Amino acid sequence: MKKYKIIIAYNGLNFYGFQSQPGQRTVQDEIEKHLSMLDQQKVRLYGASRTDSDVHARGQVAHFSIKREIETQKIALILNRRTAADLYITDIKEVTEDFNARHDSTGKHYCYRIWNSQEKPLFNSDNLYWYPNQILDIKKMNEQAKYLIGTHDFTSFASNAKRPDEDKVRTIWEISITKKGSLIEIDVRGKSFLYKMVRAICGNLLEVGRGKKINLDDILKARTRSVGERNLPGKGLTLEKVYY
Amino acid sequence: MKKYKIIIAYNGLNFYGFQSQPGQRTVQDEIEKHLSMLDQQKVRLYGASRTDSDVHARGQVAHFSIKREIETQKIALILNRRTAADLYITDIKEVTEDFNARHDSTGKHYCYRIWNSQEKPLFNSDNLYWYPNQILDIKKMNEQAKYLIGTHDFTSFASNAKRPDEDKVRTIWEISITKKGSLIEIDVRGKSFLYKMVRAICGNLLEVGRGKKINLDDILKARTRSVGERNLPGKGLTLEKVYY
Repeated sequence: MKKYKIIIAYNGLNFYGFQSQPGQRTVQDEIEKHLSMLDQQKVRLYGASRTDSDVHARGQVAHFSIKREIETQKIALILNRRTAADLYITDIKEVTEDFNARHDSTGKHYCYRIWNSQEKPLFNSDNLYWYPNQILDIKKMNEQAKYLIGTHDFTSFASNAKRPDEDKVRTIWEISITKKGSLIEIDVRGKSFLYKMVRAICGNLLEVGRGKKINLDDILKARTRSVGERNLPGKGLTLEKVYY
Repeated sequence: MKKYKIIIAYNGLNFYGFQSQPGQRTVQDEIEKHLSMLDQQKVRLYGASRTDSDVHARGQVAHFSIKREIETQKIALILNRRTAADLYITDIKEVTEDFNARHDSTGKHYCYRIWNSQEKPLFNSDNLYWYPNQILDIKKMNEQAKYLIGTHDFTSFASNAKRPDEDKVRTIWEISITKKGSLIEIDVRGKSFLYKMVRAICGNLLEVGRGKKINLDDILKARTRSVGERNLPGKGLTLEKVYY
């Protein structure tokens, strides 16, 4: 058995998230199916991040082991030829037996993209959230984002349905909001994230940007999801990179 | 009655071309429907270019006349609110009674986009043609494109099914092929074009780019469509601008 680390890019719109779900099309199932055919046995794929429905990735990381002797690059070639057009293995390398895509990760970079214009995003809108209502104030968003940098209890920015007893303390290294033309990018980098935490942060930042009088420091300190603003939809979110 | 000129952008993938077709969804029908509701009578829309199924536009131009007294900008606002998400009026202005979107046009700019990489274009691929097989030689394509510049009989680059008796002489001002990352753009500017002429030119240029020993001057001089290469698909083509 040899163990491999792969980097996966996918357009999440037609996946029911990364993680295997009975009766649904998921990234894990799609890759496992072709790996299992290749290895003539059931192969399991372990991802670094369980991205939700509609959420995209440019740099998802996963590991798997197969017994078949085959040149490393050829595995990616075969997968890329056989998997659907909305999924692509961008890199593969052999790793030692102790490598674990999830546990060895030291951090992640997510980007949330907002198309902030009355003009419809006619092309290339798969990974954008369209917000035509008003022009967002980027300066205010950056100011308020600062309150979230560092190590905090992020209960106010977590969907609590899954794992209610989980420790909600997380560390965010950086949040930067930039604008180029009509495209706003919210880049969030941190050690690890709670379920739907990035989309909750972006939902609150959007309200700040449109002038609502809220203070993210107050919301953070309240430590309850009931005070914050709604999550933004999955399709604007992309997992850009997993750090090791 | 007042006459208006509008500039229309659309994603062509879910339209059966610009021109009205019985039982099909077309750009003309979509806009006429909402103009007719606005004016409480049948309004006709006249486009500058009859783009095909799947072909996109950033700068299609059309004209129409309505009797209702209404502020010019408001017409665009109403249309943009009511038309589907894959169509957008980017500009509107009142014109004199003698304006004709088709006949007054002095030229057009089309761009054909090729995604030239083994890597799947996961996002933003609606207006790209994916060519993963090999890396195209841009220099050769630009060299051969020069033979088509100027005024020529373009029979070899025309789909002859429509209007067989039409004069096939056309004038091309410029063809430039540029590459940025994996994206190749073939910009074609000219006075007017035959049916599917740009896609035929691009199909021949692609064959040049992948090293086939053909000479576009020979093909041009043969004056028969039977000698050239296949057309590229509509989805890579965008009508960028109509000149007046």
